[in-house]
This record gives sequence, structure tokens and C-alpha cells, in this order.
Amino acid sequence: MNHLLLNDSIVPESDVAISYKDRGYHFGDGVYEVVRVYEGAFFTLDPHIDRLYESANQIDMSLPFSKEHLKANLEAYKTKEQLENGSIYLQITRGEAERNHLYTREEEPVLLGFVLPDRPPTDASTVGIAAYVTADVRWLRCDIKSINLLGNVMAKRKATDHDCGEAILYRETAVTEGSTSNLFLVNNGTLYTHPADNYILNGITRREVIALAHELGIDVVEEPFPKEVLAHAEEAFITSTSIEITPVHSFKGDVEATLKVGPLTKKLQQAFTERVQKTRSASI
Amino acid sequence: MNHLLLNDSIVPESDVAISYKDRGYHFGDGVYEVVRVYEGAFFTLDPHIDRLYESANQIDMSLPFSKEHLKANLEAYKTKEQLENGSIYLQITRGEAERNHLYTREEEPVLLGFVLPDRPPTDASTVGIAAYVTADVRWLRCDIKSINLLGNVMAKRKATDHDCGEAILYRETAVTEGSTSNLFLVNNGTLYTHPADNYILNGITRREVIALAHELGIDVVEEPFPKEVLAHAEEAFITSTSIEITPVHSFKGDVEATLKVGPLTKKLQQAFTERVQKTRSASI
Repeated sequence: MNHLLLNDSIVPESDVAISYKDRGYHFGDGVYEVVRVYEGAFFTLDPHIDRLYESANQIDMSLPFSKEHLKANLEAYKTKEQLENGSIYLQITRGEAERNHLYTREEEPVLLGFVLPDRPPTDASTVGIAAYVTADVRWLRCDIKSINLLGNVMAKRKATDHDCGEAILYRETAVTEGSTSNLFLVNNGTLYTHPADNYILNGITRREVIALAHELGIDVVEEPFPKEVLAHAEEAFITSTSIEITPVHSFKGDVEATLKVGPLTKKLQQAFTERVQKTRSASI
Repeated sequence: MNHLLLNDSIVPESDVAISYKDRGYHFGDGVYEVVRVYEGAFFTLDPHIDRLYESANQIDMSLPFSKEHLKANLEAYKTKEQLENGSIYLQITRGEAERNHLYTREEEPVLLGFVLPDRPPTDASTVGIAAYVTADVRWLRCDIKSINLLGNVMAKRKATDHDCGEAILYRETAVTEGSTSNLFLVNNGTLYTHPADNYILNGITRREVIALAHELGIDVVEEPFPKEVLAHAEEAFITSTSIEITPVHSFKGDVEATLKVGPLTKKLQQAFTERVQKTRSASI
């Protein structure tokens, strides 16, 4: 990992310097994606790219290249890095400007991509993690995958300080999602998760899980539920590109509960692994 | 303006490059201040520095230098730049790290300061501005002066697209503040503004105005009020370090109203100008 994707070029890491005038640096004015690579092939690249463009559109930022062009650059970068297993982080900021909240729509976006190495393996996927339940203080456009992530950062740190692997966030009336993941509950054989509105980021893995559940004949209810429901869940798991489907074995913080890693979670994990394998075979 | 303050040094602009690993660039993980300089002297420097440290404390970031040390650096930088009238922008990010929401508390913060030139003079301080009333979608820790400013940026752009100089934001039940300013209303000789809680940034100019009002025997009510109240205001003005006290001559968007630039606004503007002059004399 000694090169980065910078705008339209693959450049050595030592050549990458960000302007202190980049609006990403003054305002968090940008959007991002993390795309997983399994055994040399991108997984669900198209929905990630589509979401990147949609996030950019939501913050009124025009991207100066087509999706096809970006995908070709990502393929070239992955090849250059000889990336077999890991992820590529990709962010686009609105670019350089004199520091002023008001952007002019004439800025030139800055794209930066780099490899995120696989994190060391843990037993989280089998034994689960503890999750810290705490208030959601983020903005009301969590559907935009922006780099305004301070609320997420603070929640993640708080969870870790309480020996938990993730924070589960709730607003006054509803549990929304994790600080870096979506949350699913299982009760009576049905999956429950927050609907994909402005209060959550509609994860690509979340979408995959819902599609797999439908294929498996599992009912999925996308409705808000209050945090008290967490105490009565039979199973719970979180999803993201990085942690795939990871069970929650306990809730701490504003709700306390112990759960089992149950059959429906395992079934979906198995189906997800098969989906990854199938995609990989198809791309060879 | 060809030098910047970078950590403990004053360096030529061409030498300043930000690491692509700076957490300010990935998460908006940092805080900032803008300090005004009038005729060569800082105005209200101490409360700005105090707030910077308080913002850093709120995001759990320890600063590696004392307030006195930072103030001395700012004085040296102002002298180097021969800054007579303008502002110094100052931000501190959590520093470089492998991209991960979880910070370790071992990062080294990066301080960056540079001159913001005075904007071209307008007649806004006498004739006022139009303000665009729109929903407040920001996070619930607006008391922290962080660089997670995308909500503010989007509101400012929306206001400008509607030929307004500022956006006035409201939550379900209360008008909060402007996208880059605090809001005051006048009714029956009393000043009204949102209390300094987690929904607003407690501006230094806001505090100055409240102090001046008390000196002038003007009642100040710091209580939330619904947006409908905007339609019945006799006078309204916004405050910030950059625009000082600027009257609002009309509201557009979700509330429509026309106001006069009234006597109480003018009285406070006059008192504020005298306060600036007094401070300047004291510093000579």
C-alpha cells in the first residue's frame, strides 16, 4: 500500500498532500464510500458508486467524471495495489476555496482513494459483540454518507470506553443505527430494522441482508421501534461493509440485555458468505 | 498574507501541506475559532481562546499547549502578517491517524491559523439583509464549534440561492440561530434570543450584545420561541464576529415578513462600535 488514487491519477503516497484550503478540511464538505475487495474482486461495487453519486448530489456537488470512468480507475488502482482482501476508502471533497461557508459551484472536487487493510480477525462473527446504547446526536441527514462524522466518532469512542464494540444510537422515539453499522433485531422469526429514511445511512450490507431475508422467506419489518424493544430482542446483529453480519451478545448503557447468537443470525451469515462466494466466482 | 501559523511555527504558505491522514479531512474531527483584529489589536481574544479549549474538551481532544502560549503565537503571527484589520481563522484537528472512527487519545493535534481578509464593505449594517427561514437539520451539539459544518454550509447556500444573506434555522419548536450567526428579535423594547444550550453556538458577539443590552437597561429574554414569532418581530438582527450586528429587513422562506431597521438595533450597533473603540484604545 504505497500508492493512492488522487483525482485521475495513481500516485505514490509521498506525493500526496492536501491543500489547507480544501473544504473537506474546513467544513467536512465531502462524501465517501468504503468498498470491499474479496479475493481480488470488488463486492457490490455498483451500489457503492451509485450511493457516492447520490450523496454528492444531495450536497449539491457535481462530479467531473462518469461512474464508468471512476470504476475503471478503481479497477486500475486495485490492480496496482495488488489488493486481494481488504477495502478501498474513497472520498470526494468539494475542493479548494478561500474559507467561506458559501460555495460557488465552481470548485473542483478532490477525489482521494486508498487501501484500508483488513483488520486483524476476531471471534466477533461467532461470539458477537457488546453494544453500547446511547443517544443519537447526529444531524437529520444521516442518509448522506458525508465526512461530517464527529457524532459517529464520539459515539464509537464512548462505546469503546465502556468495553463495547459498537454504539447503538436512539432518538427520542426510535433506535436508528450503529455509529458505523446498521442494526437488526429478531423476534418471533421476523427481522426488524429502522426504515431507510433521513435518520440512517442505508448500508449496502443492510440492503443485501434484506434481499437475502426475502430469498430465505424471512419477514422483514422496516419500522422505527423505541429503545425499550432492545431489551426484549431474541437476537440482534449489526451490518456493515467492514464487519459484514456481526451478532450482538449484549446491550449496555441506556438499555441492558443479554442475547444469544441465534439461528436466524447464523442463517443470514451463512447466506451472506455464499453471496460473497457466488459474486467472486462470477467475477473470475 | 503569505504565511500561516502551523502548530508552533509561522511558515510560508507554500510549505503548508496537510496530511491526507489528518482526521480533520476524514471525519471533520476538529474545532475552530475566528478572531477579529481591529486596527492592529485583537478583539475579545480571551473568550475566543477559552471557547476553543472548551470545544476541544467537549470532543475529548487534549491540546498540547497552554492558552498563554497560543495567545503569544497568535500575537507573533499577527505581527508577522502586519494585520491591521481582518480576522485570524484558527482550527485544530485531532491530527494524523490510520482512518478509523475510533481515536486513540494518542494523536497529535494539528493547529492551523491563517488570515481571513476583510470582506468588501456593504451597506448591510445600515439597510439590513434578507434572511431565509428554513429547517435546522444540524446535530444536537451545536454548542461545540466544530468543523462538522455541512448543515451550516447547505443552509448558507440555500439562503444565497433565494437572494438572502443568511439562513435562519428552526427546529420543530424553536428558532435556533443563523447558519453563521446568532439571531435576536426585538418586541416592545425587549430583546429575545435562543438560550445558550446545545442547540446553538454561543457567539462571542452574542455575549457582547447581551452585556451591552444589560448596560443600556434593555431587557433580554433568553428563551426558545417558535418560528411564527418571526412574523411579528418589530426588529431583528444577527450577530457574529464577522458581521458584528447586522439588521434583518425581511424574512423569506418558511416565514415571510418585512421589518424596519429600528432604534434598538441602531442603539446596540452604536454601543458595539464604542466597545470596539474602547478596547482598541485600551490595547495601545
